[in-house]
Amino acid sequence: MKKVSIRDKFDLIQEPWQPKVVGELNQQQVKLAKLKGEFVWHHHEHEDELFLVIQGHLSLHLRDRIIELEEGEFFIVPRGTEHKPVAEHEVYLLMLEPTGTLNTGNVRDFRTVDAPEHI
Amino acid sequence: MKKVSIRDKFDLIQEPWQPKVVGELNQQQVKLAKLKGEFVWHHHEHEDELFLVIQGHLSLHLRDRIIELEEGEFFIVPRGTEHKPVAEHEVYLLMLEPTGTLNTGNVRDFRTVDAPEHI
Repeated sequence: MKKVSIRDKFDLIQEPWQPKVVGELNQQQVKLAKLKGEFVWHHHEHEDELFLVIQGHLSLHLRDRIIELEEGEFFIVPRGTEHKPVAEHEVYLLMLEPTGTLNTGNVRDFRTVDAPEHI
Repeated sequence: MKKVSIRDKFDLIQEPWQPKVVGELNQQQVKLAKLKGEFVWHHHEHEDELFLVIQGHLSLHLRDRIIELEEGEFFIVPRGTEHKPVAEHEVYLLMLEPTGTLNTGNVRDFRTVDAPEHI
């Protein structure tokens, strides 16, 4: 039961695309990640996923459109919806999703993280 | 499926202590509220609750200590834990909790909101 400074936690993150768990409640996890570049198309069969931009600009590609997210904006990707985050410049992202959600969803990729670290 | 600007949503909120629903995922709700003054001591029997300060300074009183939260800091109040938010000056707060969580938990108060508005 400690408070969490989002800013301080980001200082602990080096590598992009490596989600870190910073909080857990009601079988959901709060995760932080730095993004840079283009991720892989994927979806989550049973999990909705919230993306909140803390810093930077994220282009969240869906199959039919692109959601442009600025700092302080979030989007909820419903379960089953294919998406691909693209960060032209580095983005600090907060995610909220059920515990156990795999970052690459239904696909495996060299960036798949099976057991995200708690920081 | 629209993106949400936290800042724009706060512009729609007038009254303090009136949580508004701005997102829903995995049976959880993202709520925003403006706080000003002292709330009522309460707890939630079955729900953990996340408090993230978007603007201002929140003193989150627990029975054994006070958690001082600045902008960009969050605290998760575990189910069953008595707490009382105190905002000396106006605070913009983001909350995350299961759908149906009552703002005053186990007590009723003139500020109890049975059906928070979606904005």
